[in-house]
Amino acid sequence: MSDLTKERVEAAYAALATGDRDKILEYWSQDVRFQMPGNHQFAGWYTGLDDYLGKMGKLMEASGGRITATTLNVLINQEEGISVDIYRLDGYRAGAEEGTISPYERLQVEGVHQLRWENGRIVEGRSALFADGVTRANLWWSPVGTDGERTEL
Amino acid sequence: MSDLTKERVEAAYAALATGDRDKILEYWSQDVRFQMPGNHQFAGWYTGLDDYLGKMGKLMEASGGRITATTLNVLINQEEGISVDIYRLDGYRAGAEEGTISPYERLQVEGVHQLRWENGRIVEGRSALFADGVTRANLWWSPVGTDGERTEL
Amino acid sequence: MSDLTKERVEAAYAALATGDRDKILEYWSQDVRFQMPGNHQFAGWYTGLDDYLGKMGKLMEASGGRITATTLNVLINQEEGISVDIYRLDGYRAGAEEGTISPYERLQVEGVHQLRWENGRIVEGRSALFADGVTRANLWWSPVGTDGERTEL
Amino acid sequence: MSDLTKERVEAAYAALATGDRDKILEYWSQDVRFQMPGNHQFAGWYTGLDDYLGKMGKLMEASGGRITATTLNVLINQEEGISVDIYRLDGYRAGAEEGTISPYERLQVEGVHQLRWENGRIVEGRSALFADGVTRANLWWSPVGTDGERTEL
Repeated sequence: MSDLTKERVEAAYAALATGDRDKILEYWSQDVRFQMPGNHQFAGWYTGLDDYLGKMGKLMEASGGRITATTLNVLINQEEGISVDIYRLDGYRAGAEEGTISPYERLQVEGVHQLRWENGRIVEGRSALFADGVTRANLWWSPVGTDGERTEL
Repeated sequence: MSDLTKERVEAAYAALATGDRDKILEYWSQDVRFQMPGNHQFAGWYTGLDDYLGKMGKLMEASGGRITATTLNVLINQEEGISVDIYRLDGYRAGAEEGTISPYERLQVEGVHQLRWENGRIVEGRSALFADGVTRANLWWSPVGTDGERTEL
Repeated sequence: MSDLTKERVEAAYAALATGDRDKILEYWSQDVRFQMPGNHQFAGWYTGLDDYLGKMGKLMEASGGRITATTLNVLINQEEGISVDIYRLDGYRAGAEEGTISPYERLQVEGVHQLRWENGRIVEGRSALFADGVTRANLWWSPVGTDGERTEL
Repeated sequence: MSDLTKERVEAAYAALATGDRDKILEYWSQDVRFQMPGNHQFAGWYTGLDDYLGKMGKLMEASGGRITATTLNVLINQEEGISVDIYRLDGYRAGAEEGTISPYERLQVEGVHQLRWENGRIVEGRSALFADGVTRANLWWSPVGTDGERTEL
């Protein structure tokens, strides 16, 4: 079994980004549960890797790929099998004007992922956002744009 | 062309409740636009009668039919072709425990519909909720339940 | 006792704007209750004219006077002693940059006041906002600015 | 200078609880900045120890002392001078009915504090809440109760 280290946390996210399922399963349990904060249409617990990957797909669809995630810090508690990574997101809704500050179109937040590891794999994750990030996430994920018109996802 | 009266407003809602499209079209324009308040997954502008009726269907699906709407008052401005009706909703999410006060499961709100009439038919409507009703509506329509688990609609 | 007319509703708001208490008391009851929508620090029921006028003062303080209210329509129900006026607000927080679209700094909403009249005076009022106006009002009234720093009121 | 350890994090919170300013200053900088998440009346950045302690006092006042905080996990990143502690809160608004589940009266949330340490003292902290905790915090801190009446703090 692999030790829980900063490098292993980073490798788990790198595996996700490849989209290679075998690679992902080296770090993420088939039965992983993952919770998105807030009350928007994609908030709440996702159950199982497929459900979670589907959610990641929605994030890409919503942003039209115009989203960047940066890991700021990683913290490890080896004995309890827990990692926390602090991250920054900057993303647009697909079609949003470059540079807009409307929270309905632009998501600029910092937050944490808390991951619980068992036998070298992530079995549970949940996210929280600093400042008024959860309101911003609710607005960004909302089907309602700045002008009140709906965008279906 | 029919006069805009309290009775005509009430008849427009009664027609909706029948589900009879021909009946509905006596009061509602084929091209009606209707706006739900808030930022939840069913908020924003609906365009055209089919879109609006689909939204009404979602309300019934979400509540499993356990929802009651009461009209409290109707006000008319004949010259400007506008009516406002004040209403009360009391509804549960399907499967919610009877009597619960969790806003994630129970919607108890009062609000208004503002309707704009042209040639005897409603061409535009929008809704607003008193008190903290919009937050309550956001939570009620949320896929997230009191326990954080997701309910797909 | 004066009839409830569109002109009387407009005169009631005009009296408020004078700040002349005797004038105000021709239209507003000493014991008026008034409810602001949302869950922000100035939301909820205000009890009595002094409490309500204090709230109006907070609105002026928050905006540094940079707020405009426009009445769009007035509807009357004589028999039931109820008026509804539909209004538009456009306001800045004091010190906000002209033209900003951040909802933490700029309030652009439309809504209604429902007023209940007894013996020619307003005894109860409550407000509701269309679209995502209540979220916008919560953010505008928030002590938190776009940058997360606090502004005391 | 003291090492950044789990024990030191726990001692920092224990010092806070004593209310003994000299004791507190062994762990917390005079110039600490601390950010509460959300957009409620006590959200945003607090600047300086007095400002932060005043905020803690408001929490006690709001709850009438009926609030419990439990530390679930502590994580340390020695090199970067950062700690994260994961906590659970269960609190009532003063006067709330025991056992109520109304989020306007009861706060049941889990979250994190991220603390940045310099020269053995905390110079910056910020908090984030999991699940829909920020909405729950906004409602709990709201002057508006379940019944819409205001509670001044």
